[in-house]
Amino acid sequence: MLNVTKPCRITGSGMHLPSLVSSEKIEAEHGMPAGWSLKHSGVQTRHWISSETVAKLGSQAGQSALDDAGVELCDIDVLITAGGTSDQHIPSQAALTLGQMRGGDRATCQAFHVDASCLSFISAFRLAADMLQDPEVKRILVVASEVASVGIGPANWETLTLFGDGAAAVVLEESDDPRVGLVKHRHTLYTEGIQAAEIPGGCVAKWVEDYAFEPELHHFQMDGRELLRLTLKHIPKFIEGFFEGTQTTWSDVSWTVPHQASKTGLGVIPKIARVSPERVVNILENTGNCIAASIPMAFHHLAKNEGVEKGDSIFFIGTSAGYSIGGLLYQHG
Amino acid sequence: MLNVTKPCRITGSGMHLPSLVSSEKIEAEHGMPAGWSLKHSGVQTRHWISSETVAKLGSQAGQSALDDAGVELCDIDVLITAGGTSDQHIPSQAALTLGQMRGGDRATCQAFHVDASCLSFISAFRLAADMLQDPEVKRILVVASEVASVGIGPANWETLTLFGDGAAAVVLEESDDPRVGLVKHRHTLYTEGIQAAEIPGGCVAKWVEDYAFEPELHHFQMDGRELLRLTLKHIPKFIEGFFEGTQTTWSDVSWTVPHQASKTGLGVIPKIARVSPERVVNILENTGNCIAASIPMAFHHLAKNEGVEKGDSIFFIGTSAGYSIGGLLYQHG
Repeated sequence: MLNVTKPCRITGSGMHLPSLVSSEKIEAEHGMPAGWSLKHSGVQTRHWISSETVAKLGSQAGQSALDDAGVELCDIDVLITAGGTSDQHIPSQAALTLGQMRGGDRATCQAFHVDASCLSFISAFRLAADMLQDPEVKRILVVASEVASVGIGPANWETLTLFGDGAAAVVLEESDDPRVGLVKHRHTLYTEGIQAAEIPGGCVAKWVEDYAFEPELHHFQMDGRELLRLTLKHIPKFIEGFFEGTQTTWSDVSWTVPHQASKTGLGVIPKIARVSPERVVNILENTGNCIAASIPMAFHHLAKNEGVEKGDSIFFIGTSAGYSIGGLLYQHG
Repeated sequence: MLNVTKPCRITGSGMHLPSLVSSEKIEAEHGMPAGWSLKHSGVQTRHWISSETVAKLGSQAGQSALDDAGVELCDIDVLITAGGTSDQHIPSQAALTLGQMRGGDRATCQAFHVDASCLSFISAFRLAADMLQDPEVKRILVVASEVASVGIGPANWETLTLFGDGAAAVVLEESDDPRVGLVKHRHTLYTEGIQAAEIPGGCVAKWVEDYAFEPELHHFQMDGRELLRLTLKHIPKFIEGFFEGTQTTWSDVSWTVPHQASKTGLGVIPKIARVSPERVVNILENTGNCIAASIPMAFHHLAKNEGVEKGDSIFFIGTSAGYSIGGLLYQHG
């Protein structure tokens, strides 16, 4: 058993996806060779909104997680929404998502939004684990909901085929069992990669009143080669530091739940850790990269399809725009 | 002395403002009667950016806070940026602000952004206090930076004259004195007020590719009468619940540091609490409403002009778009 530093327990998870969009459809519409998406992005199907919002997807995933945990919204002390995309500049996504939830009109919980791009869920999980050490905080709902599809365009086949929309949520509760909870969390931001993945326009720096829509400004720009370089440069030391003092190694954890960054990104894992592929959750082919929603979606997939057992250790790991690396080791019970 | 639940200590604060803009100038440019701004919004001067960004203002305020605390960026374990406005959709504001800081290119701290609109600073303070209970977290920099001016227009004289840009930051450190730190924090979101203050466009719900600039979509919309109604309806019960169990009352705290929401909003305070006006920090006339930066700006003003003494209790209180009420009681030392 690992040394838990912040007792807490995942008691439920849920997920919600909008309509399925096949790679065949995208390839036919944009004059791409058949099979390009699966071959290059590793994605066969993803889900894109028609008229849904971040709040709509998130509220449904949140409700599923509450149902899974057997609780209602009024039992929640804190709602943390987590993600890189939002429905509006103001108010916060937490307010908008809460407003869409069943019972949201009568809710009186604390609510705020956390943004660390693709690592937002891991950051929110860590904050929730900290907050659950407060005897007054019993139960937290973390909702990661993302709509990536509005910010991608046909000029870049890789981003066009890689990204999907979706939401997933977990209920985290206090734990009186000191062997269940967060073992360790680390998050490091390396600003040298600040421009390797970005949407330059749309906010204060290039406000819509001065900068009308342009694909270069408002579609997601990603330098995949640079992101790979940053990952290969920084992740070995990050991983070494992460497992230091944990009395375990990456190879020994029960499950790895990685961000579904890209085919290349997921492919890096066996190069740096001796992990059996069947112990690494990979849902990229069916749902694409859903920004911060990918990690809890992968966890939900694991929980529902493989089952997470008492005593299992789960290593959440990912990289994000920024450029950041984040990892969180959790022991279930 | 109050009962501190989360020992921590503010060891430095800083602030940065862009160029001053007088009400005379705004009134003359927009055909408003002379004196309208001070009379109706309570604001004589505010500061607006010319070409600065949220990151630029925030990095300067952050550096001032580090200088005030006598530390450097490399001494910081966690950077939390807090606010309702950001420079870009992706990456997070935390990455963008860190990238602008002196030593930001060599920083390896954790960094994330918290958004609870005008209450973002209070939410970040509470999270920082939670994180500082972790023996591995020694020092956190909280930076609240806001650029409101891009999202206001001449059609609404109240928002045009009320809002300012600015940034303020605090350094929070672990405290081995159990009498210094966070006494209590409460934050409640009431979704009935979700549309009382908003920028409807610009993000996923009304993405720039489909919705070109329109003042109604991209300028801040505020129903001041509804916000006042919500405040008068909910704040008495909130305050009663807040001070329950603290063995003090609002009247007995050393200093009240309120959000500089509006002349009316600040005017509500003496109606609900017997607080001497000279114990309530009011900087509205000189800096306007700077969204989440207003509270740490008011704290910095207090610390530099009046001085905060050992044992002083400070009540941070505000309302925000959402609609939310948040309060945090801190005992200094």
